Amino acid sequence: MMRRELSVASSIPDELRRNFNLAPFIADLGIQLDSLGEGECTTVLQIQHRHLQQDGFVHAGVLATMADHTAGAAAATLLHKGQIVLTAEFKINFLRAARGERIICRSKVLKPGSTLTVVESEVFSVASGQERLVSKATATIAVVTSRRA
Amino acid sequence: MMRRELSVASSIPDELRRNFNLAPFIADLGIQLDSLGEGECTTVLQIQHRHLQQDGFVHAGVLATMADHTAGAAAATLLHKGQIVLTAEFKINFLRAARGERIICRSKVLKPGSTLTVVESEVFSVASGQERLVSKATATIAVVTSRRA
Amino acid sequence: MMRRELSVASSIPDELRRNFNLAPFIADLGIQLDSLGEGECTTVLQIQHRHLQQDGFVHAGVLATMADHTAGAAAATLLHKGQIVLTAEFKINFLRAARGERIICRSKVLKPGSTLTVVESEVFSVASGQERLVSKATATIAVVTSRRA
Amino acid sequence: MMRRELSVASSIPDELRRNFNLAPFIADLGIQLDSLGEGECTTVLQIQHRHLQQDGFVHAGVLATMADHTAGAAAATLLHKGQIVLTAEFKINFLRAARGERIICRSKVLKPGSTLTVVESEVFSVASGQERLVSKATATIAVVTSRRA
Repeated sequence: MMRRELSVASSIPDELRRNFNLAPFIADLGIQLDSLGEGECTTVLQIQHRHLQQDGFVHAGVLATMADHTAGAAAATLLHKGQIVLTAEFKINFLRAARGERIICRSKVLKPGSTLTVVESEVFSVASGQERLVSKATATIAVVTSRRA
Repeated sequence: MMRRELSVASSIPDELRRNFNLAPFIADLGIQLDSLGEGECTTVLQIQHRHLQQDGFVHAGVLATMADHTAGAAAATLLHKGQIVLTAEFKINFLRAARGERIICRSKVLKPGSTLTVVESEVFSVASGQERLVSKATATIAVVTSRRA
Repeated sequence: MMRRELSVASSIPDELRRNFNLAPFIADLGIQLDSLGEGECTTVLQIQHRHLQQDGFVHAGVLATMADHTAGAAAATLLHKGQIVLTAEFKINFLRAARGERIICRSKVLKPGSTLTVVESEVFSVASGQERLVSKATATIAVVTSRRA
Repeated sequence: MMRRELSVASSIPDELRRNFNLAPFIADLGIQLDSLGEGECTTVLQIQHRHLQQDGFVHAGVLATMADHTAGAAAATLLHKGQIVLTAEFKINFLRAARGERIICRSKVLKPGSTLTVVESEVFSVASGQERLVSKATATIAVVTSRRA
């Protein structure tokens, strides 16, 4: 399940990579796909002023969006043809104020399933080259057969 | 605690109303304050293309951002001078795909506390005048004394 | 969905009532079925010393067990023949220390679904006839076709 | 924070070990302390018939109780004199049906704090010597000054 990306990258459809930024909200925020592996996904966001809350830290909503979308992409690496993923629910803890140059989200499937896949997302801030864990989320992702398929 | 807004609106500092859009991320998304009451807040967002995910529905991250920020504002109506609110964690369930003209978030304090306040947020989509509950969140909000105070 | 129990009680299979205490853990704790309605369930537990934690309050695990099992029973009122419910996940907030003579759990389906049903459970302590909300939980319940069916 | 138990065990007050089973509910269920380290705790439960739900698996409430209590003990290893821990909330995902001879819960502090500590608990079933992850929980634990202190 959790084999390293490099050995399995070739099995991840290019379609998944291309699709990543098809979500207008993700493209608008500037969240970028960094890597995709079997049951894994990493994304990056360069922090801009528009991403902040009133005290100058990255808004919880930005961290939650990144945790959710990256979790969905990690789950999507395990889909069969004609299936799509939908987030049923997630829970996120905010551990430290997030600031710096960018944030990185690393998501890994904890338990794949034919109808429900559970994914964990860790969000790190990067300031002066130092990574700090700022949030951790657990998402329950529904695997459904697309009506378009 | 849950008295109606109209009877208590005068006790809600104007500062809170002015502060609402001081969070750049909230202003950037277009989330607007509709009403503030004691332990309550309602916000509205006109749905734009940039708020969507890849299937044409409002992105979970937009719903989560609105649920979190509105919950924080509801908790903030109960603060003492020099205190601020920070989201410790939240959990959100996505009940139906969200689409339509706008989304409305209604947050109410379930349990106020001197260090932790628990708030529930319900997010509704509005399409052709019909409201539908699309998400429900529970947030644990930390009440902290601001270092700036 | 949320019609009152009295009007729909006759449509709730007697089997559901009989099955409630088939879970050995629920029978062992002493959790009793109070009422079942369409998408609703209420249970009661007389507080005993063995239910407490080290400070003399009802243990969080007792409240969580009651919130989970009552949520499952509420979801089960909406099943089709041959289906069973399994808890996929739940989140519970502890709002006040629970003590008194008994605790009551009231669960209501927030959103029924063919594969996932979302249920909310409120747990109240009763002391000297006064009810106080002590916990609130949200559960995601999977609806699955039983292999036994 | 996460240094190994053996090197720090001497700094864990014996009081904490003695206190573990002071919670009547934990003693009644049969949950036993296995090891305590700085920010870590492991517990074990021999599965008995009374721990099961209606389909013969360990009841979700047993897994949740173990995840919560072990998380609290892990957080308690980091307390200062006169402080106690109280669970503010937790979220638990049930990944697989739990059965076998016993269950083991391993909890680790993800982020310590002066007022809130976040802990993760993993629950494993053991059958024929094989461990399988059956649940994962994240708990937000409040650190409070005891009125008794």
